[in-house]
Amino acid sequence: MFSFEITNSDDYARTGVFSYPKGKVETPCFMPVATCASIRLLTSQEVMDMGFGAIILNAYHLFKRPGLEILKKSGGIHNFMRWNGMVVSDSGGFQIFSLPDSHADENGIILKDPESGITHYFTPEKVMEIQNSIGADVIMCLDYCPKIWDNLKEVNLGVHRTVSWAKRSKLVHTNPRQQLWGIIQGGVDIGLRKYCFEELEKISFEGYGIGGLSIGEPWEKTIEVVNSICRSIGKKVVYLMGVGMPDQIVETVELGVDFFDCAMPTRIARNGTTISWSGKFNIKAASCKEQQIPLDPECDCFVCRTYTRAYIRHLFNAKEMLGMRLNSYHNLYFMAKLMEKIREAINKKAFAQFKKDFLTKYKRKEKNA
Amino acid sequence: MFSFEITNSDDYARTGVFSYPKGKVETPCFMPVATCASIRLLTSQEVMDMGFGAIILNAYHLFKRPGLEILKKSGGIHNFMRWNGMVVSDSGGFQIFSLPDSHADENGIILKDPESGITHYFTPEKVMEIQNSIGADVIMCLDYCPKIWDNLKEVNLGVHRTVSWAKRSKLVHTNPRQQLWGIIQGGVDIGLRKYCFEELEKISFEGYGIGGLSIGEPWEKTIEVVNSICRSIGKKVVYLMGVGMPDQIVETVELGVDFFDCAMPTRIARNGTTISWSGKFNIKAASCKEQQIPLDPECDCFVCRTYTRAYIRHLFNAKEMLGMRLNSYHNLYFMAKLMEKIREAINKKAFAQFKKDFLTKYKRKEKNA
Repeated sequence: MFSFEITNSDDYARTGVFSYPKGKVETPCFMPVATCASIRLLTSQEVMDMGFGAIILNAYHLFKRPGLEILKKSGGIHNFMRWNGMVVSDSGGFQIFSLPDSHADENGIILKDPESGITHYFTPEKVMEIQNSIGADVIMCLDYCPKIWDNLKEVNLGVHRTVSWAKRSKLVHTNPRQQLWGIIQGGVDIGLRKYCFEELEKISFEGYGIGGLSIGEPWEKTIEVVNSICRSIGKKVVYLMGVGMPDQIVETVELGVDFFDCAMPTRIARNGTTISWSGKFNIKAASCKEQQIPLDPECDCFVCRTYTRAYIRHLFNAKEMLGMRLNSYHNLYFMAKLMEKIREAINKKAFAQFKKDFLTKYKRKEKNA
Repeated sequence: MFSFEITNSDDYARTGVFSYPKGKVETPCFMPVATCASIRLLTSQEVMDMGFGAIILNAYHLFKRPGLEILKKSGGIHNFMRWNGMVVSDSGGFQIFSLPDSHADENGIILKDPESGITHYFTPEKVMEIQNSIGADVIMCLDYCPKIWDNLKEVNLGVHRTVSWAKRSKLVHTNPRQQLWGIIQGGVDIGLRKYCFEELEKISFEGYGIGGLSIGEPWEKTIEVVNSICRSIGKKVVYLMGVGMPDQIVETVELGVDFFDCAMPTRIARNGTTISWSGKFNIKAASCKEQQIPLDPECDCFVCRTYTRAYIRHLFNAKEMLGMRLNSYHNLYFMAKLMEKIREAINKKAFAQFKKDFLTKYKRKEKNA
C-alpha cells in the first residue's frame, strides 16, 4: 500500500514517487501547511490545482478544534476539508516549543492551551490515537523538540525521550492505511543526531522527519545536520520539517531531502511579502505604488495574469483582505512551480546548474531591494 | 450612449435594461459594494461570474486611498480592479452620516478622516471632479443626508442644499461617458420628498437615487416613501440606496425599484450570518456543529457544492479567514440568484406569487432559528 521509489538522482539530489493507499506524490515535494484544516484563505481545490500532492496539518490543533468527534462524523480529514491528495499529520511535539507554559516528562508532553488555560497530557499512545482518528495518510511519532538554548545534556535527554516515545508509538501502530514516520532529534550535535537515527532505525520506520531545525541555529549548522542525516538515511524517505523557503529548499534538495513543509510562504504573504523568481519583496513598499506590472512578471498564476502591483499594494494599504488572499495564492503557486522545476532539473541531471541560476537571481534582487 | 428601457412590468414591479457606453445591465439589479475598489475577500472575476452586472463604490474612500493619481495611472477604476461590468460611484454625501466629526455648510460637506485627523472640504464641483477621475459609468450628485433624529426644519434645509448642490453638479457635468443621477432626500416626510424630486426633475436627471433611508426609520415608513417616489419618477431609473437585504429587495421591487446596493450581505457574512432560501442563520451556532449539509441545500454555488456546514463552522471557530471568504461568496451568490428569480417572476407576470412564496419561506425559518 505504501512505497517510496527513487526515480532519478543527480549527485545526492533525487526525484521519487511516494505511493500511499489513495494515490501518489512526486518528490521532492513541498507540503503547504493547513494547521487547522485550512490553507489560510485558499480553498483545497485551488491548492490542488496548483499541483500540490500533499499537505501537512497538526494533531494538537485539530484535537482542540474541531475535535475528533466532528472529524469522525465528517468522514475523516480528507472529506472534512475536501482535500483529495495526501495528508501528513504532525504529532504535536513541536507545540512544546511554540506554546508557552508547556513542558514534558518521560511519558509525554503537557501542553497548556493559551486560550482556555486547560492543559492536555499527550502520551505517545494518545497522540497515535488522535492521529488515527484524524485519518491522515502519514503520521508522525511524538517527539521531544529541544529549545535552541538547551545544553547538550538536555538535548541528549530529548533524544532518549524521542527514541523511547517512537518505540511506544510503533507498538500501538496498527492502522495499515497510515504510515508512521519517526522523527530525528539531537539539536545541532551530529553525534546525537546519528545516534537518534540509529536507534530509530532499530525500531524501523519507512520515513524519517528531521525535527528541531530552523529554530534559530545558523544555516551552516542546518546544512551540516541535514547532510549528515541524509547520508545515514539513504534510500528511505527524508522529510525536513518546518524548513521551506525557496532558497532553503534548493540548498537541501541538493543534500537528498524528499519532503518539506513550511508556514512561511503563506504567513509572510499575509504581511505583504511576495516571493518572486527575482527574490522576495514587500508589496506594501512605496516603490510598488504605481507599478502596472504583475507581482512577478515571470509568473503565470491567475493573480499575476490578472492584477497589478499597484492594485494589490492598494488592497494591503486599505486593509482589504483580498490582498492577503491574492498574495497567499501567488506565493503558494510559486512554491508549486519551484518544486516542479526542481524535479525537472534533477530528472535532466542538471540540478547543480539550476541551483546556481536560481540562487543567483533569487538572492541578487533581494539584496538590491 | 445611455438608455433605460423597461422591458416588462407586473403591476408596479418591472424588468428593464440599462445601457451604458460599454455594456448593458438587467434590472432589477443588486450592486455589490466595493467601497475601496474591492468586494471584500472576493475577486472581480468571481463576482462577474455570479452574474452581477454592476457594482457601487465610494468617491470619498477612493479619493483617500489609492488616490486619484494612482487611479488615473491605472487606467481608471475598471482597469484598476479588473471589473468588466458597470461601475456606479457614490458621491460621498453619506459619509457625513458615517464619519464622526463631519458637518456641512451651504457649499458642501466637511469630512474628517478618522485615521489621519485631516479634514477634506467637498463641494459639489469637487465631488464631480473626483468622480470624473475615478471613471465610473454612473456618478451621483453630492447630497446632504439628514440624520434620523433631525427635526423637520433640518431635513428641509438638507433638501434645499441637496437641490442646490444637484444644480451645481449638473452645471459642471461634461463627460458624456458618465451619466449623472440625482439623489432625493427628505427623510420620511412625503411632502418634502415629493418637493425634492420635483426640484431635481426641473434640473433633469435620467436616474434618481433615493437616499437617506434604512438609517433607523420603521420599515413601513421606508415603504411609504419609496412607493410615493416611485409613483413620481415613473419610467426613469429608480435606485434605492443602501437598502438591500433579500426581503427588503423583494418588497421594494414590488414598488418599482430598479437598482439596489447594500453592504449587508457581505458584512454579515464575515460575522458568520448565512443567507439561505429558508432565511438567515448564523453558521457559528452550535446546531451547525456536526451538520454534513451545505450552507443552503437549495443553493448550487461552489461553496454549497463543496463544503459542509460543519467545516465552515469550524473555520469560523478557528478564526480561519477562509470561513469569511466562503460565506461571503455564498451570500453574494444568493443575491445574484435572487435577482435572477425576481426578473424571471416579473417577466412571467408572476411576481406577486413569487413574493408571497419567497417571504413565507424566508421569514418562517428565520423565526424558528
